[in-house]
Amino acid sequence: MIVIMEPGVAPEKTDAIIDRIKALGLGAHPIFGEAQTIVGVVGTPIPPTLEDEFSVQPGVLQVVRVSKKYKLTGWDFHPEKTQFTVRGVVIGGPEIAIMAGPCSVESEEQTVSTAKAVKAAGAHILRGGAYKPRTSPYEFRGLGRRGLEILAIAREETGMPIVTEVMTPADIDDVGEFTDIFQIGARNAQNYLLLEEVGKAGKPVMLKRGLSMMLEEWLLAAEYVMAQGNPHVILCERGIRTYEPLTRNTLDVSSVPVINGMSHLPVFIDPSHAAGKRALVPALALAGVAAGADGLMIEVHPSPDHALSDGAQSLTFDQFSALTPRIARVAAAVDRTLTVGNGARRAAD
Amino acid sequence: MIVIMEPGVAPEKTDAIIDRIKALGLGAHPIFGEAQTIVGVVGTPIPPTLEDEFSVQPGVLQVVRVSKKYKLTGWDFHPEKTQFTVRGVVIGGPEIAIMAGPCSVESEEQTVSTAKAVKAAGAHILRGGAYKPRTSPYEFRGLGRRGLEILAIAREETGMPIVTEVMTPADIDDVGEFTDIFQIGARNAQNYLLLEEVGKAGKPVMLKRGLSMMLEEWLLAAEYVMAQGNPHVILCERGIRTYEPLTRNTLDVSSVPVINGMSHLPVFIDPSHAAGKRALVPALALAGVAAGADGLMIEVHPSPDHALSDGAQSLTFDQFSALTPRIARVAAAVDRTLTVGNGARRAAD
Amino acid sequence: MIVIMEPGVAPEKTDAIIDRIKALGLGAHPIFGEAQTIVGVVGTPIPPTLEDEFSVQPGVLQVVRVSKKYKLTGWDFHPEKTQFTVRGVVIGGPEIAIMAGPCSVESEEQTVSTAKAVKAAGAHILRGGAYKPRTSPYEFRGLGRRGLEILAIAREETGMPIVTEVMTPADIDDVGEFTDIFQIGARNAQNYLLLEEVGKAGKPVMLKRGLSMMLEEWLLAAEYVMAQGNPHVILCERGIRTYEPLTRNTLDVSSVPVINGMSHLPVFIDPSHAAGKRALVPALALAGVAAGADGLMIEVHPSPDHALSDGAQSLTFDQFSALTPRIARVAAAVDRTLTVGNGARRAAD
Amino acid sequence: MIVIMEPGVAPEKTDAIIDRIKALGLGAHPIFGEAQTIVGVVGTPIPPTLEDEFSVQPGVLQVVRVSKKYKLTGWDFHPEKTQFTVRGVVIGGPEIAIMAGPCSVESEEQTVSTAKAVKAAGAHILRGGAYKPRTSPYEFRGLGRRGLEILAIAREETGMPIVTEVMTPADIDDVGEFTDIFQIGARNAQNYLLLEEVGKAGKPVMLKRGLSMMLEEWLLAAEYVMAQGNPHVILCERGIRTYEPLTRNTLDVSSVPVINGMSHLPVFIDPSHAAGKRALVPALALAGVAAGADGLMIEVHPSPDHALSDGAQSLTFDQFSALTPRIARVAAAVDRTLTVGNGARRAAD
Repeated sequence: MIVIMEPGVAPEKTDAIIDRIKALGLGAHPIFGEAQTIVGVVGTPIPPTLEDEFSVQPGVLQVVRVSKKYKLTGWDFHPEKTQFTVRGVVIGGPEIAIMAGPCSVESEEQTVSTAKAVKAAGAHILRGGAYKPRTSPYEFRGLGRRGLEILAIAREETGMPIVTEVMTPADIDDVGEFTDIFQIGARNAQNYLLLEEVGKAGKPVMLKRGLSMMLEEWLLAAEYVMAQGNPHVILCERGIRTYEPLTRNTLDVSSVPVINGMSHLPVFIDPSHAAGKRALVPALALAGVAAGADGLMIEVHPSPDHALSDGAQSLTFDQFSALTPRIARVAAAVDRTLTVGNGARRAAD
Repeated sequence: MIVIMEPGVAPEKTDAIIDRIKALGLGAHPIFGEAQTIVGVVGTPIPPTLEDEFSVQPGVLQVVRVSKKYKLTGWDFHPEKTQFTVRGVVIGGPEIAIMAGPCSVESEEQTVSTAKAVKAAGAHILRGGAYKPRTSPYEFRGLGRRGLEILAIAREETGMPIVTEVMTPADIDDVGEFTDIFQIGARNAQNYLLLEEVGKAGKPVMLKRGLSMMLEEWLLAAEYVMAQGNPHVILCERGIRTYEPLTRNTLDVSSVPVINGMSHLPVFIDPSHAAGKRALVPALALAGVAAGADGLMIEVHPSPDHALSDGAQSLTFDQFSALTPRIARVAAAVDRTLTVGNGARRAAD
Repeated sequence: MIVIMEPGVAPEKTDAIIDRIKALGLGAHPIFGEAQTIVGVVGTPIPPTLEDEFSVQPGVLQVVRVSKKYKLTGWDFHPEKTQFTVRGVVIGGPEIAIMAGPCSVESEEQTVSTAKAVKAAGAHILRGGAYKPRTSPYEFRGLGRRGLEILAIAREETGMPIVTEVMTPADIDDVGEFTDIFQIGARNAQNYLLLEEVGKAGKPVMLKRGLSMMLEEWLLAAEYVMAQGNPHVILCERGIRTYEPLTRNTLDVSSVPVINGMSHLPVFIDPSHAAGKRALVPALALAGVAAGADGLMIEVHPSPDHALSDGAQSLTFDQFSALTPRIARVAAAVDRTLTVGNGARRAAD
Repeated sequence: MIVIMEPGVAPEKTDAIIDRIKALGLGAHPIFGEAQTIVGVVGTPIPPTLEDEFSVQPGVLQVVRVSKKYKLTGWDFHPEKTQFTVRGVVIGGPEIAIMAGPCSVESEEQTVSTAKAVKAAGAHILRGGAYKPRTSPYEFRGLGRRGLEILAIAREETGMPIVTEVMTPADIDDVGEFTDIFQIGARNAQNYLLLEEVGKAGKPVMLKRGLSMMLEEWLLAAEYVMAQGNPHVILCERGIRTYEPLTRNTLDVSSVPVINGMSHLPVFIDPSHAAGKRALVPALALAGVAAGADGLMIEVHPSPDHALSDGAQSLTFDQFSALTPRIARVAAAVDRTLTVGNGARRAAD
């Protein structure tokens, strides 16, 4: 930690800082510049509240924290890229992992048909919401446990692992009975008790970025999961809130290379929620892969105009199977792979 | 709902929209302008997904929802300003209600001494966190149930009602056993299941605005609480996240008159979290009252430099008791009141 | 400047930084902590590009600039609050200075009648746009030089000084021939050549905050004006751009106490542009004064519904003269003054 | 235009709106729904201020503008994608046009060597700043006319056309004497008089997006240029300002598909200014091309650590010539081209 004193500060104010540092059993290293004095603090542990304390002391201009707050999610403690396998699907490897499916599970037929279509087009994992967070209490909120059962049926029929959102600790047992990957939604990205409980549940966790979450906060949220002994966390960028009204959110595509520089965790892109409009989904999906994303999460629905949620941003089967070959080409251009199934090839012809 | 067609759209595209409206048993009212056609939709119920569906149909430029999504929180269904009493303290009345106390409950002595000091200075309600949401898993997270017991002791000694945060449904029983008002923090402002559960608990709820929550979303979150039959909701503005680094958040003081125009619910201001620095707290508290806030929530600590959380933004006893007479003067200037105790008068002399 | 090295960095990388510092004739002061090394840089002048250079060197985690970039606008070089007089009106004194008038000068009658009305209600300075920046090229863009002449007539008839916007260096002579205070609009707040040219013109300058300008950048923009030898700069907060759609901009009321802590320059609030709706203007004006603003700029129009620009946010004469006595009361509550004329008192009765 | 009345509004308020519409010679088409009434306005011209006027009338909930504000930049009036040629370089065609060069022109040697290096690596157009906007008045502000002369020498030696920024109308003649494309910087993106003057100068204009400019505002700014009879406008996304501190700006990659849906103008991406750090530039450049950008603007410097401006975000020659073959691969994957020179191929081996 470094304490930067105001220019021309009275020496006793600097002395007071130094005395306080020493009283904590830490080392104080002042540097007296021509215009300003700074005091370096060395030793451990530095109390987490010391930054706050010093920042408002008389004569202090600014306090700079030197050490990173995140540990388990950073490269320093884990120099290998995280890679793991979910029912045979590799996350964090050279193959772009594609999660696709409806926003909400609405019926067995809708879900199973979507699962088959997206699998044929190259998707690896089936997404679908059984418990849906909705801005208004008067909107469709998912089928609950019945939705989970339908997802399991779709898995049975296609062999695809499933990812679905859990919104509250009380649902972890139910969701965990069925899902292969827990999804934590953007609105719960800083619901710390949920993060801890889901961290204990022994299955991979996909953590969406909160609506206005800084990248370091996102890693700290992932840290809550990892601190429970769960190393299998996926980060998923889904757009942040800005002033621009023409997109539902603003996809922060830079988050991919920045996180890749800070953390060993796989990073996915959700172009559907970022865009809010299906016409924009392909461009954002391709941009995400070009930027280095390890995977994509894309909403697909047999009849988007009649979807019970997020229809405007869902692709039809045809749109999705026309997209995956394009993703495969961009993946190859950045030395990644995507193996596209027959269904996709047919659509792409 | 209004559907605005693209300029020069082919008539059959407009017809398709009209047909779909009629198929739903609703009325379609097209208006053919020189440059553009619009179609008004009348009748109820309009399916909540219709906006999404129409927005991506061929030939549609834009869909405009006419009706407000919020109901119980709006003036239309509740033309009287909400006012209620918590252990004798009136919320939503002419008196500015002041919640004050430490960020975290750290010890009985710290909490009781703060309660006495803030009461003497004019505060009405004691705040204090027993369960603390922290960005990092490695920071102090509150005393838990012991913290609640300490708050109850402070209430016993001062007669002040208490407000404290609940972070997860599993804690509602414990927190509800002690608290007079449940606080929902900014990071849980869209944790809908928590909102519903706390709405059922039969005590007033103070709902902080989320970090990047639109005002309409905030009312919809309050709607989750009210839909459980709980009419006693307080909204608390605590700053939103912007690009400006010199304040922890940006206090959106306009939220006060805007919400007052939309909703009958009382609106409070939390200048401490908005500012992040104690030197800014007085100016923001006064601004909030001048803008029409019904109350304030302010962090006070016997020794802020040694606080276990948020020390930089906490006022000392002296600073707080110097502030309340200033608040009282501004309150009077906007035809509100604040009765300041002897402690405050002494400090103000 | 402080260079913070990565944890566990190879010593030769730190040595390279130290060598480079010495090669520049500066002093290098390394501090070797348990986990990390930092290097303090002392001496002058530190090249302005060194921060950039070091920030991307191998082994460097972060570079922290210690000295403030702004000089003339800061308290360090000017320990007295700036106060000056424009045709007898004191800016930066205990009296809240009120600028009021139409968004655009539309006609002599409209402008003179507004000038008389706002003066009667307590305003000190007449505002009015002769050259209008408009988002679209197809909107009304002001009367130009004829607008300036009308402002001068209104000054003649009322004795009020005038403030009007200048948009481009070529207009400085024309505008300067008439105006008492140059206004630089939000969209030109970082039009540096305009700032310099207007700085040379020998009259006070009111600098609006840019739509997404950081507070430090705002001071640096004022620094451009002051560096030309012009000490008479007013800063005017008019709302920043955020994601919230219900206000035109988000008034950053915290800017008032933050700037007051950094700079001796007077700070005004423009509640009209911040709100975008006249119903919100009074609350924001009162909040600004309570937060410590030195003045206000408020749009007033004889018939706002027929204004050629910004009608929705303009007050009527009656609304303005009902507002000034309320401002006067809040001003008194924060130990400032506003002397309200007979017109205002009548309206307030 | 559509006027949406409050639910349960008194009929005379709706009548007043209808009367006003008729008084303007326009057609009023009310639709009486169960809960609410709306009034469609048809006919032309609708006064541009009518939206403002109606929005604050008693009984009005909201006014919705139907027609688009932009004309010349939109597809409606120009159904072909804009494509033009600058000294043989095609803008808006299948080839990704690459502008590269130093942030600032510092010397003939620096500029000519950079021009040769970037040309060898596949760049088409030389960028370089002779007049530099700087946040602080104490930073390097460019060589001015001498910088323009150096750019012309580099053009002479390499055959590459040049693009350079003009900051103020008074410099248009000087800059126009040398440049092939005028650049308007982000801070001047709403400097409307500059846009008009540069629109008259008879050369292509590249318009960067302002720091917090909405996409529609950006098109309207381009409209200022095009309204002068200049059809050759390039839009360049360079990141918007958000709360995230780890990137200098947030690249809004969605702007590419959104603008492509609204406008026929070519869209470029500037990954250097968006990122602010050279390590992020490649990922953002590739993402931009994958999203459909027509070109890129990238900063390159012979010795970035000693650059007089923006060194941290500039690539070295080697980094740039390693990047262009990667861009070429992604371009091919989205059915675009980039022909990479020998220099690049060598570096890529």
